[in-house]
Amino acid sequence: MTTDFAATRAAFVLPEGIIYLDGNSLGPLPKAAATRVAQAVEAEWGQMLITGWNRAGWMEQPARVGDRIARLIGAEPGTVVMGDTLSIKVYQALASALEMNPGRRVILSDTGNFPSDLYMADGLVRTLGDGYTLRTVAPEEVLDAIDETVAVTMITEVDYRTGRKHDMAAITARAHQMGALTVWDLAHSAGALPVDLAGVGADFAVGCTYKYLNSGPGGPAFIYVAPRHADRARPALSGWLGHEAPFAFDLAYRPGRGVERMRVGTPPVLQLAALEAAMDVWDMTTMADVRARSIELTEAFIKGVEAACPSLTLASPRDPESRGSQVSFRHPEGYAIMQALIARGVIGDFRAPDILRFGFTPLYIGPEEVAAAVAVLAEVMDKGLWDRPEYKTRARVT
Amino acid sequence: MTTDFAATRAAFVLPEGIIYLDGNSLGPLPKAAATRVAQAVEAEWGQMLITGWNRAGWMEQPARVGDRIARLIGAEPGTVVMGDTLSIKVYQALASALEMNPGRRVILSDTGNFPSDLYMADGLVRTLGDGYTLRTVAPEEVLDAIDETVAVTMITEVDYRTGRKHDMAAITARAHQMGALTVWDLAHSAGALPVDLAGVGADFAVGCTYKYLNSGPGGPAFIYVAPRHADRARPALSGWLGHEAPFAFDLAYRPGRGVERMRVGTPPVLQLAALEAAMDVWDMTTMADVRARSIELTEAFIKGVEAACPSLTLASPRDPESRGSQVSFRHPEGYAIMQALIARGVIGDFRAPDILRFGFTPLYIGPEEVAAAVAVLAEVMDKGLWDRPEYKTRARVT
Repeated sequence: MTTDFAATRAAFVLPEGIIYLDGNSLGPLPKAAATRVAQAVEAEWGQMLITGWNRAGWMEQPARVGDRIARLIGAEPGTVVMGDTLSIKVYQALASALEMNPGRRVILSDTGNFPSDLYMADGLVRTLGDGYTLRTVAPEEVLDAIDETVAVTMITEVDYRTGRKHDMAAITARAHQMGALTVWDLAHSAGALPVDLAGVGADFAVGCTYKYLNSGPGGPAFIYVAPRHADRARPALSGWLGHEAPFAFDLAYRPGRGVERMRVGTPPVLQLAALEAAMDVWDMTTMADVRARSIELTEAFIKGVEAACPSLTLASPRDPESRGSQVSFRHPEGYAIMQALIARGVIGDFRAPDILRFGFTPLYIGPEEVAAAVAVLAEVMDKGLWDRPEYKTRARVT
Repeated sequence: MTTDFAATRAAFVLPEGIIYLDGNSLGPLPKAAATRVAQAVEAEWGQMLITGWNRAGWMEQPARVGDRIARLIGAEPGTVVMGDTLSIKVYQALASALEMNPGRRVILSDTGNFPSDLYMADGLVRTLGDGYTLRTVAPEEVLDAIDETVAVTMITEVDYRTGRKHDMAAITARAHQMGALTVWDLAHSAGALPVDLAGVGADFAVGCTYKYLNSGPGGPAFIYVAPRHADRARPALSGWLGHEAPFAFDLAYRPGRGVERMRVGTPPVLQLAALEAAMDVWDMTTMADVRARSIELTEAFIKGVEAACPSLTLASPRDPESRGSQVSFRHPEGYAIMQALIARGVIGDFRAPDILRFGFTPLYIGPEEVAAAVAVLAEVMDKGLWDRPEYKTRARVT
């Protein structure tokens, strides 16, 4: 392993007294992002005004940053572009895939998918009408459920609750064998583990950047379109910045070159500035190093918790090859336990009905934090410190 | 008039030596926005991490800021929510409106509409299939073209090139009389002139915030849904934050209360912080005062340019009641003339094929800037200063 994880850690603002195991929900602030955002606000917006679109390179930023993300997910250069939110990009990818497979009407997904993906697919099939449907099966049934009726699979590689990891290569191969296309949601994959989109032959992929990639709250999403599809995929959300010549202001839409057609409206320049700075940290490492370290950390956490907290049940796969970069445990009082942890500076999160979720992010979390988190959790469980009324009152967001 | 426009002007960063007549494309930086964004980055994201969703109020921000915009566009409290881009919101509003008028298949728009609205409508009708069509007519024919086949009108109140203003009350009344719904695009209206959505009985409205509202490059859009529709409009783009209970993570979508259902994905917190600070300036004025001042400025500009530059032809309506807060002139060498102006610190923009466009934004532009801009333009035209090769080379973005 060649990565200097002390150096990557030093690149982040990490508040005193906090062990942050929630970077799989919102990554912490890269120090350079604060400077970069201030520059985008004051030197670019403030001083360049409208000319920032050319002079500061705002217009090309979604493709420029997309290329840096492409490197982390095994995508070819020029196949990833930034914009919108993950939900919007799911819709766009699904709509394109369905149109490219016109004889079929089924989107196949699984009940472990993040609900927003299912909601977006539901919205799309209602809009399409004509017998289009969303079919969901249990996660372990996905492979067998891909049959000749399936137009496109919509699968999130890593389960947001348990960290269970689908076999992207096997599902993609099976889909192609049965004549289906694939849309992969990489929300809990990008920056969490190696992804090889080109290698597995994925058709479309989407993801967010505010989790493992550390772009900040509400950072933009990305979309990948395989080169073989990019010049024929029709973006159902066909906005002017995906037009072949946006500033010609033609009345008729003509899709732009390649993945650029998946751009829709004006890009969020300030959020992209934060993301661009966050990507600099990724230049200090490789996904192989991050994955090796992630497995060390998750293995140590599981071992520590299982030894110290017998009432917690592992909800994540025990085999590290079958999980992402998070570990989840179940307990009927999971909500209150998580509140007790947060009150003691160990930040994870709770997912209904009973899941305690902990993210392990090697860029800024190491073995010392794992040991300390285990010790705090052990004390909370040993002494029943979670059993207080104030920990049982549910806030809106956890 | 009670507004202290010297005070509103002092709230902005206005670079030395620049006369900025392009606030209708990208508003300048409100001084407080720089501070507010830095706070969102450092004190909120940096120190609160994931808890910012509750502690910093990020989750409610799209509705909280929406209410402040509602005041400027004559919308009822609780009817406006922020998110996504204007193009996405156009799609969402159109899809909802079409579903609410199921016996009809036609979206009516006009050739003066901003092309992205037409592109999004085109993408939607292709997705819907089943005979759905986008019908476009000349702007002056809109009223007569609203017949019993029209499901929804999609009209931008103020033409982005000429500033020509549609009669929102008349078109809305006609649409309702013929059984059609209305989607109003307020891109060049919000913050430019008084809008009375509730008064005219508009059904849906959308707009952007980076023009007259000064939220910065890529600031989020807004959507308005009339209270009478809000609990039955189905958001085709049905994301988790528009769900009735996003954090229940139900597998089935249930739309949220009222306009909240039009939320889709995670809101762009940093862009919203800039917008929130920008809205403070709007608390220092009223749309009536802004409009009165805007008419003074545009009248003075037209009078000055017509007296000094006979080769320029007014492209905007002469009657101030029939135009927005911009003035456009035509000239076959419009592109080069605009480059010559920009080189001399007068920033407007060019819109193909021949339009010089100047925005008048009373919050930070006054009679002195109008007089100075006229003088520079007069000199450029008198001396033919635009006739240089470097002004004729087209950049990608103008």
